[in-house]
Amino acid sequence: MIIAVDGMGGDFAPVEAIAGCIDALKENNDLNFIITGPEEIINKELGKYNYDKSKISVVDAKEVISLNESPVMAIRKKKDSSLVKALNLVKEKKADAIISAGSTGAFMAGSLFIVGRIKGIDRPALAPIMPGRNAPFMVIDVGANAECKPKNLLQFALMGKIYFEKILNINNPSIGLVNIGVEEEKGNELTKSTYPLLKESGMNFVGNVEPRDIPTGKVNILVCDGFVGNTVLKMYEGTASNLFEIIKTEIMGSLSGKIGGLFLKSVFKNIKKKFNYKEYGGAAFLGVEGICVKAHGASDKIAFKNAIRQCVNFRNNNIIEDIKEELIKINDIQ
Amino acid sequence: MIIAVDGMGGDFAPVEAIAGCIDALKENNDLNFIITGPEEIINKELGKYNYDKSKISVVDAKEVISLNESPVMAIRKKKDSSLVKALNLVKEKKADAIISAGSTGAFMAGSLFIVGRIKGIDRPALAPIMPGRNAPFMVIDVGANAECKPKNLLQFALMGKIYFEKILNINNPSIGLVNIGVEEEKGNELTKSTYPLLKESGMNFVGNVEPRDIPTGKVNILVCDGFVGNTVLKMYEGTASNLFEIIKTEIMGSLSGKIGGLFLKSVFKNIKKKFNYKEYGGAAFLGVEGICVKAHGASDKIAFKNAIRQCVNFRNNNIIEDIKEELIKINDIQ
Repeated sequence: MIIAVDGMGGDFAPVEAIAGCIDALKENNDLNFIITGPEEIINKELGKYNYDKSKISVVDAKEVISLNESPVMAIRKKKDSSLVKALNLVKEKKADAIISAGSTGAFMAGSLFIVGRIKGIDRPALAPIMPGRNAPFMVIDVGANAECKPKNLLQFALMGKIYFEKILNINNPSIGLVNIGVEEEKGNELTKSTYPLLKESGMNFVGNVEPRDIPTGKVNILVCDGFVGNTVLKMYEGTASNLFEIIKTEIMGSLSGKIGGLFLKSVFKNIKKKFNYKEYGGAAFLGVEGICVKAHGASDKIAFKNAIRQCVNFRNNNIIEDIKEELIKINDIQ
Repeated sequence: MIIAVDGMGGDFAPVEAIAGCIDALKENNDLNFIITGPEEIINKELGKYNYDKSKISVVDAKEVISLNESPVMAIRKKKDSSLVKALNLVKEKKADAIISAGSTGAFMAGSLFIVGRIKGIDRPALAPIMPGRNAPFMVIDVGANAECKPKNLLQFALMGKIYFEKILNINNPSIGLVNIGVEEEKGNELTKSTYPLLKESGMNFVGNVEPRDIPTGKVNILVCDGFVGNTVLKMYEGTASNLFEIIKTEIMGSLSGKIGGLFLKSVFKNIKKKFNYKEYGGAAFLGVEGICVKAHGASDKIAFKNAIRQCVNFRNNNIIEDIKEELIKINDIQ
């Protein structure tokens, strides 16, 4: 399998991306990487390692897309960027997958415009797996589509289901519709029109899920438009990190706090581990004609290695083919 | 001041509502209460206390609106419910304010239909104050309006500003638009159209705020449609309570955890206090022709007492008159 890696994407580019590739090679000899980015920078970093030179090649890309650029404009104008070059490798079938830890907006726009949609999928969606109290859960979409139609959400549910079954090995995962009340008639026009579609879909639809219940992980897949999903994702991150900051401040504010804090070091370490986004790789961009994985901007080599493993699973399980086949089943509902 | 209290609303009705009124009377002799509910139940509970009988009267209401009922239907059909009777007292100017800890949906529907809108306010909004890391913040709307127009959000901002200035004594509070990115052009149709209105409004608009930054409390007032606001509120509650559950489980899972937990008892107590919703009273339903306060369903007597104090502040500061006056200033923007 050949994976294109955006060498200049992410807070620690290209160091951690390259370290992740090197580590992945040690575990899986079937892998090949094409790293995009300014040749001298990438080669200099690769020069630090001993590795089978036939396994990693470099494609020169002089430009870098920053986080502050308009995603669509950046994709259009920066043809010589590490991201666009990596995406082109997938489009031209020179690579089987792409991983980028750079701008999420540019990654999504590029995946859509360059790699292209699966026929029948109207709106691809970004679908991270997040750690929950009882089990990990997926939120789909978390930002690709700020406005959605009911049909889009039905397709999100289908893609999420296939991903969950194939990558997380959970059969017939539960699917919930993110809503402001549990009753069928609650919500806005979108949720009210989506509910009956999901009910008819033949999938394991468990009804509306109020955001307060999402962090428990009781429901596997949470379906919503990208605005709401992004709110869910960012409130989850923001609330957790704020709470940890408050706990830290309070602990450091008194002697008994400091002593207690010492005893609880391993406890907090466990919790941090539990909430580690790295474990699940990146967020899959589902619905495009290629394996497109968005790694977290702060990804280290372990996160990259897990994103690489995710790409391997994605391919070995023929997820794209499955999506195409299962789309037919929901065609008459749409 | 006369406050109508829905005696049968909330998880601990009528016990805590009545206890709150009794306690409030001890501190403020200018208060009068009318408690609605089944006469014998309310009187029996009142019989437990020694208080000035001229200060509390009871209005008989045989019905109770439950949490599972359709709000609009319940308001229409249950004319003899404790909520509808209390709202009617405000409508008929027999009471200056109403507090209910019952069904939020029924409370909002009833306030809207019975008490009525302020002329010029298209959509009243529910606006709780929440504890943040650095300061409390308001989210408006958290559920009254699942679909909104830009003009509604502009009015939310105005009402939030007046409330914040008058009740929390923060002059020229900062106003943010909840959005999935900080750039002006980000978001959905609603946020894109609302941004320029807020920019022109003359209020202290600080731009888009990503949900991840909401819990810091850096921005005073967060404006959004009721679907997004409800998601923010419920993700905040859900994430925090889940995290505390996880911490508790981890602490109890090892000896060092248990020891550390003992040392941190006061730390966690402080944090719990910091996150105490009771402190800010209830959520004001802003934009109606009366003081309508929704207390938390789990309100105890302290929460009720704070909601009562909130009603007093609301009235003493002429918030409804202020809203009417300031509406004129934003008229040409709308």
